[in-house]
Amino acid sequence: MTQQSVDILLTNGWLVTMDSQMTVYPTGAVAISGNTIAAVGPTADIEAAYAAPTVIDCQNCIITPGLINAHTHAPMTLLRGLADDLRLDVWLYGYMMPVEREFVDRNFCYTGTLLACAEMIRSGVTTFCDMYYNEAEVARATAEAGMRAILGQTILKFPSPDASSYDESLDYCRRFIEEWLHHPLIIPAVAPHAPYTATPDMIKSCVALATEYDVPLHIHIAETALEQKNSLKQFNVTVVPWLDQYDLFDAKVIAAHCVHLEENEMHTLHIHNAGVAHCPSSNLKLASGVAPVQKMVDAGLHVGIGTDGPASNNDLDMFEETRLASFLQKGVFGDPTLLPARATWALATIEGARALHIDHLTGSIEPGKRADIAVVGANNTHQLPRFARDPDGVYAQLVYATKATDVRDVLVDGRMLMRNRELLSLHEGDVIAEAGRIAKRIDAFLTAREGNILSKLLAIGSDFIPQETFEIQVKIRLPELIDLNQRLTQAGLQPFRTSVRKQYDTYFFFDGEEGDRLRFREDEVKRSELDEFPVETFYRMTLMGPSKEREFENSVLLSRARYTTSANHSLRFYREYFQPVAEREVTKLRYRCHIIFEDKDFAINLDQINGEAPHNVYLEIKSRTWSAKDAVVKAELIGKLLEIFGFAADNQFKIEYVDLTNQ
Amino acid sequence: MTQQSVDILLTNGWLVTMDSQMTVYPTGAVAISGNTIAAVGPTADIEAAYAAPTVIDCQNCIITPGLINAHTHAPMTLLRGLADDLRLDVWLYGYMMPVEREFVDRNFCYTGTLLACAEMIRSGVTTFCDMYYNEAEVARATAEAGMRAILGQTILKFPSPDASSYDESLDYCRRFIEEWLHHPLIIPAVAPHAPYTATPDMIKSCVALATEYDVPLHIHIAETALEQKNSLKQFNVTVVPWLDQYDLFDAKVIAAHCVHLEENEMHTLHIHNAGVAHCPSSNLKLASGVAPVQKMVDAGLHVGIGTDGPASNNDLDMFEETRLASFLQKGVFGDPTLLPARATWALATIEGARALHIDHLTGSIEPGKRADIAVVGANNTHQLPRFARDPDGVYAQLVYATKATDVRDVLVDGRMLMRNRELLSLHEGDVIAEAGRIAKRIDAFLTAREGNILSKLLAIGSDFIPQETFEIQVKIRLPELIDLNQRLTQAGLQPFRTSVRKQYDTYFFFDGEEGDRLRFREDEVKRSELDEFPVETFYRMTLMGPSKEREFENSVLLSRARYTTSANHSLRFYREYFQPVAEREVTKLRYRCHIIFEDKDFAINLDQINGEAPHNVYLEIKSRTWSAKDAVVKAELIGKLLEIFGFAADNQFKIEYVDLTNQ
Repeated sequence: MTQQSVDILLTNGWLVTMDSQMTVYPTGAVAISGNTIAAVGPTADIEAAYAAPTVIDCQNCIITPGLINAHTHAPMTLLRGLADDLRLDVWLYGYMMPVEREFVDRNFCYTGTLLACAEMIRSGVTTFCDMYYNEAEVARATAEAGMRAILGQTILKFPSPDASSYDESLDYCRRFIEEWLHHPLIIPAVAPHAPYTATPDMIKSCVALATEYDVPLHIHIAETALEQKNSLKQFNVTVVPWLDQYDLFDAKVIAAHCVHLEENEMHTLHIHNAGVAHCPSSNLKLASGVAPVQKMVDAGLHVGIGTDGPASNNDLDMFEETRLASFLQKGVFGDPTLLPARATWALATIEGARALHIDHLTGSIEPGKRADIAVVGANNTHQLPRFARDPDGVYAQLVYATKATDVRDVLVDGRMLMRNRELLSLHEGDVIAEAGRIAKRIDAFLTAREGNILSKLLAIGSDFIPQETFEIQVKIRLPELIDLNQRLTQAGLQPFRTSVRKQYDTYFFFDGEEGDRLRFREDEVKRSELDEFPVETFYRMTLMGPSKEREFENSVLLSRARYTTSANHSLRFYREYFQPVAEREVTKLRYRCHIIFEDKDFAINLDQINGEAPHNVYLEIKSRTWSAKDAVVKAELIGKLLEIFGFAADNQFKIEYVDLTNQ
Repeated sequence: MTQQSVDILLTNGWLVTMDSQMTVYPTGAVAISGNTIAAVGPTADIEAAYAAPTVIDCQNCIITPGLINAHTHAPMTLLRGLADDLRLDVWLYGYMMPVEREFVDRNFCYTGTLLACAEMIRSGVTTFCDMYYNEAEVARATAEAGMRAILGQTILKFPSPDASSYDESLDYCRRFIEEWLHHPLIIPAVAPHAPYTATPDMIKSCVALATEYDVPLHIHIAETALEQKNSLKQFNVTVVPWLDQYDLFDAKVIAAHCVHLEENEMHTLHIHNAGVAHCPSSNLKLASGVAPVQKMVDAGLHVGIGTDGPASNNDLDMFEETRLASFLQKGVFGDPTLLPARATWALATIEGARALHIDHLTGSIEPGKRADIAVVGANNTHQLPRFARDPDGVYAQLVYATKATDVRDVLVDGRMLMRNRELLSLHEGDVIAEAGRIAKRIDAFLTAREGNILSKLLAIGSDFIPQETFEIQVKIRLPELIDLNQRLTQAGLQPFRTSVRKQYDTYFFFDGEEGDRLRFREDEVKRSELDEFPVETFYRMTLMGPSKEREFENSVLLSRARYTTSANHSLRFYREYFQPVAEREVTKLRYRCHIIFEDKDFAINLDQINGEAPHNVYLEIKSRTWSAKDAVVKAELIGKLLEIFGFAADNQFKIEYVDLTNQ
């Protein structure tokens, strides 16, 4: 018998094909010709029929289809460990987005992807599905590393690190697709980030682009309960029907997360053959929840497993991810027979390929498919002993007792990317060095920012309005509550612009010489005390620098720098983001009016601090001032007003409410 | 300045002390003298003050207290991967206990522990807390391996692999304690397995023994919701108060699992300073649930992390376990700030030591404590880059991005157990070889058992009663329901021992030539049809071998082997345990009576199969028989009876109900 000549033979391995019969060859072999699997079978048969210049003995190893990382943001390896244990909003708006705005450029994406590829190859991953910016750079790095990937260019309705509008992103994406469409390893894709960061027009344009070139569309769907809640509130439908309205599922969709899908949404995904990427570590770490994977599988969906970006994981270890996927279904849904090892290994391989719409290329070891293979050591201390009784034991060993570091060799598209744990396609040291240089700059940027409250404020994109305030004011402690309107009327003064406000102030205090204070104010405004509900509620953040004081007989001139912005986040957000060393609350009921007295405008506040009268009642008279001369005039007028109202000036009270002791 | 002479210096590492101030030295060093930590500080200071023959450069590494595996069953490494994805009862009663009964001897415990120690040292564990049988063998292996351990001898109210009663176990335990009490590494302990496998007397004896020698008491508590439910049902209290009644908490308790503790139970544990061992992987894999760790920590409890036995994990990887502990609290309790990295690393180290009542010895790197230290590589691809901004970043790197295989060196009690990933105290190859030999025997045992239904039945400890049945019988299909009593009375026959039964039979069918069938019968017995509720319900399993038939004119003689036992488990249990290839149900309403006809005893059954009359009504007349001659006589009598009743013998029906088609 003549032997057929091929390029590589893998022999004597425990061959887990993941073909439709889930065939396992206890002493199996694979013949590889070019980038393609030529034959699969018992070693004796394959060795008899094929000869190759490279024969790799896989004794004591499992030969398995390479793992498929169904969802990640590869360049974010460069942000690994940058910020952990934070709530999603603090993590995203406080750290990820500011750093991305500042640092994500072409080199960042290229270098971060190389680092990600190095890590993924080391852990047996042969294919990944990405979503990030500058995706052409991600493609360049991936092609160099020799991995297979579906690379989605992110499209957002607001400006992103690589585009000032979604039109720009779409143009970039089209060029990116045209450039890479016929590459043997890279499948470009369109990646509208998520329903809540998209407009209907944007969705439609993305679908049109994806269908025009027949490339996949990669999107985050139903990652958090809040996303579903907001969609219901805003559109009266959950996210999948909302997306369906704009024909999203006409494209070959890859839906990441799907933690909070309803049954009808699973059905929609199923009838449109949309794939799902389950990301258990990230969903736990960011407290999004646990996706109902078994239920999705039972509904006929193709579910793959993904690491998500390494900033929320914090690694790209698909072995960890796969084990966790199985454990979570069992433990959280209360049935140890859910996602058994064999079904779970399928998710990590062939089902992942189906979810990514590339099972004609990869995901199993079958003649005709591309040679995307991991050779995994199966004879390490933590994997032993081994039992033959259960034919599914090999899957249990892979899922429950094997580590990423047990992977010995990795081939993608017939090319050997790792051999005996040595990376062959990458200069790992160079990549790590460049990653270190980028990380060092990010570290310096954030460290500087952390030391300065104002830059921390600006980093979260607050539209802060800087103000220099010069104000002449007096504060008097009153023995009891007074009828301010009556006093003013008696004095022949006509109050205007009156309001009643309940002000809830929270002050953050910080270490450091600057004495910065940050005030979060919730300001409930009523027209009068008789109103049951406020007419409006304002949320404001004010950064108060140190103030300068000049004393007059009856009052004080204050000048200080202030930065004010409307507060878009919650008090909780700011607390976790700024991490003040101390915090104090001041609640006041404020009756406020303005009067004109001798042609000057004065604001008068009657304040009850932290509770009901008669305790802590204060009268404040204040006026903006523009010159020292004007300040002198106003100081005199304030003295007169105090006399008219019948208050002794020696009740003057100079410290701020927040500095009152015995609160 | 004179340098003090010590034995080992660890220098230039990122030193995470886990002391009460959580001191971290970015370039730290540790001086070790004998088995004790002599000094800790910046490398420059330590190198100036101390000199040692062995100086280990820890550049690019983290120096951390070794991890503490707070709960395991070390010898069960030999059962790793034996049976997975099964429900707890099938796993335990179907696999673990039968195999343990057969194989757990002294060598099993010794070898299994050596394998476990090899794996644990490789993953940076320096101390573990065990519960198993033949614990003196576990101690011998652990001492040889050089690890620190608390070793609990299991006490059960029923016979165990190493004792026929709990008194015997207690005697063994006393001898074990006396033998090992003063060993520098081993702390013997008393381990009553769990509340539901203990009697009050047994608990009291365990507490007395533990307090007499001042050794810890290790026990499983509230692992499953069922355990709590049963305790409430049986004793009207949950497990902790039940144990408290018998003064369990007078001992230094180490409570494993605590998945389903109520708040008052946490309080009880807290006031008695009982430690908790949280086992997240095992609790997920066996679907027990997720322990409220943050809540327990907030309640002041000392919580350590454990792998549990490798048969339900399937490894002893404390890095995996630690990361999972953090992820689960965040994801399942919906808050990403729960169990942040620093607090989680504390659980794996110093809090683990506190939970085990040995924080005076280990758990942190402080002068005076034993030198139990792991040196962990921090410069591997999957851990990079690194950021200095967040001082807790080092913990995040350890918990979220470090693998067990990153551990480089391990010291216990000042002795180097691993250096550059080479084990120094164990002959790993020998251990693996012996483990393989034992596993091979287990494999053969189970494989043989799986091929034979009877041995599978016997393996779960069923008290099967083998019967050889010889029975002469006839079955007639009736056109409609008859009044059997009336017919009998008309014939002058007096029925006795009458009953009405609803029988729900489930038959399991198997592949294979033997034609074995297994019948699970739920037999609801009423005195008469007028009774609303059954007076008794029997559950029986019957294994029916192939039958031999000899035909008579009016009837048939059947002989067959049967094994019958009362069924202690659920139908679901047997289904998952036996995994039949097919299954069929037969439901019948059976009116049964006995008559004496010409001095012979006949049983008469009037059966309605799978539904109401007039469909599928059968009359069965049968009698035990002891000889061929007797069979001939009875066959004739059955013919007479049929005539008396007015039934044509050609309505005879020979196949069994379960083989009826068109069900």
